[in-house]
Amino acid sequence: MASEANCLPANVRRGFYETVFRRRDIRRFLPNPIPDEVLARVLVAAHHAGSVGFTQPWNFLMVKDLDRRHRIKRVFEEERVINAAQFDQTRCAEFMALKLEGMLEAPLNLIVTCERERFGPGVLGKTALEDVEIYSTCLAVQNLWLAARAEGLGVGWVSILRNEAIRDVFQIPEAILPVAYLCIGYVESFPPRPMLEDVGWAKRLSPRALLRFDSWENESGDGAELSRLVEDASIWREVFPAEQWPSERLPQDHHENQEK
Amino acid sequence: MASEANCLPANVRRGFYETVFRRRDIRRFLPNPIPDEVLARVLVAAHHAGSVGFTQPWNFLMVKDLDRRHRIKRVFEEERVINAAQFDQTRCAEFMALKLEGMLEAPLNLIVTCERERFGPGVLGKTALEDVEIYSTCLAVQNLWLAARAEGLGVGWVSILRNEAIRDVFQIPEAILPVAYLCIGYVESFPPRPMLEDVGWAKRLSPRALLRFDSWENESGDGAELSRLVEDASIWREVFPAEQWPSERLPQDHHENQEK
Repeated sequence: MASEANCLPANVRRGFYETVFRRRDIRRFLPNPIPDEVLARVLVAAHHAGSVGFTQPWNFLMVKDLDRRHRIKRVFEEERVINAAQFDQTRCAEFMALKLEGMLEAPLNLIVTCERERFGPGVLGKTALEDVEIYSTCLAVQNLWLAARAEGLGVGWVSILRNEAIRDVFQIPEAILPVAYLCIGYVESFPPRPMLEDVGWAKRLSPRALLRFDSWENESGDGAELSRLVEDASIWREVFPAEQWPSERLPQDHHENQEK
Repeated sequence: MASEANCLPANVRRGFYETVFRRRDIRRFLPNPIPDEVLARVLVAAHHAGSVGFTQPWNFLMVKDLDRRHRIKRVFEEERVINAAQFDQTRCAEFMALKLEGMLEAPLNLIVTCERERFGPGVLGKTALEDVEIYSTCLAVQNLWLAARAEGLGVGWVSILRNEAIRDVFQIPEAILPVAYLCIGYVESFPPRPMLEDVGWAKRLSPRALLRFDSWENESGDGAELSRLVEDASIWREVFPAEQWPSERLPQDHHENQEK
């Protein structure tokens, strides 16, 4: 069919989906250094995200300096106590037991920033929606995260921080917004499921429950086939042949479906 | 080396990088319908993005209804005039000549939204940084965009809109933020370079110029090897064997470098 002519071959799609499903938010790192060549590929992949008006509003601040990492870790510790106070007693104890960053162990910290006025105030694609360049920067973060996974590198996004503190420690000007503070490094292993799912903090939501059709209140799409298919393992048969279908390569919920 | 044991095989990495470098922001679509099975894979990939505190704050609103698409296109037309007024005369004429959406031609419009209080106000990983769930939603958008490209589907993000109008047309409640209004469909072809680069609206920035080291003002990293490597085509040799190195598969700027 003409319309499907641009579909990438099954082995390419498999490579893409494997990377997506095996990506994790990582908090434990090995000290091994990251070869510059590997890091360069990851950064170039990040730089090839889409951006509003092709503004490419991101920068990548590589942090190895230990003194600065100690200073930012103290900010994390302060904010973690504030974060903990949001939860009731049981959940608070669970929260405090979690390892939520690896700033000092990881060989590299990386701050992805957004320069909102990179091409002056007039931006193609920017009118009433104010935050479009920030959204673009997040797209670059996801490219970076996936590329790192493909290269065997774990990434952890540390959001328990304050932007004014990040600006202060790394001399980032007011016009630049720190969007993502990432820890990056090799890992002992990538867990088969997200850490917060494993410890019982939160569950993977059913994809079916996230769909809406034409208007917000229409959740079923009048029995749309799509609602069934997002929870049906058979949709992966075309991409992953049976012999390449180990559980950790596929979304857990679908795999469980398949076993039933 | 133990640390590299988790690196995905070269063919898997190739699949991932090909998808990244061949993704485009698309504004022209074929009318051919998208099979539910293909769309289901794309949505499941989106749902497997990382999210702060594993909140998975996203929903996916599928829009086929033509009446609603006509109404939202009128909003786009209003906002486009406002956007055009930001530019001087020459640039304004260039802007008005660009095709910036495909809302009616594409077989599907898809709104990705963010429910910021999905798990109550207390969220693991959310303290001083207010927008973390919105950032997570953008990560899901990038997964969706890449998965669509792997499946041969073009995606165009239309940001020349107003959120109150999107809420009104699709009955989206106040507590839900529309983050991305996407047009999705098969395409005649994926252009080798971004449309805005092709028409001369903006240039791809040099990745080297985007790097910073330990503090914002340190742009060179004292001659860091990394600065050289992000513009050196040889970093791709390990991933793309020479015979699989056609220009359109690699970042354009690097390919040009290689030809020198």
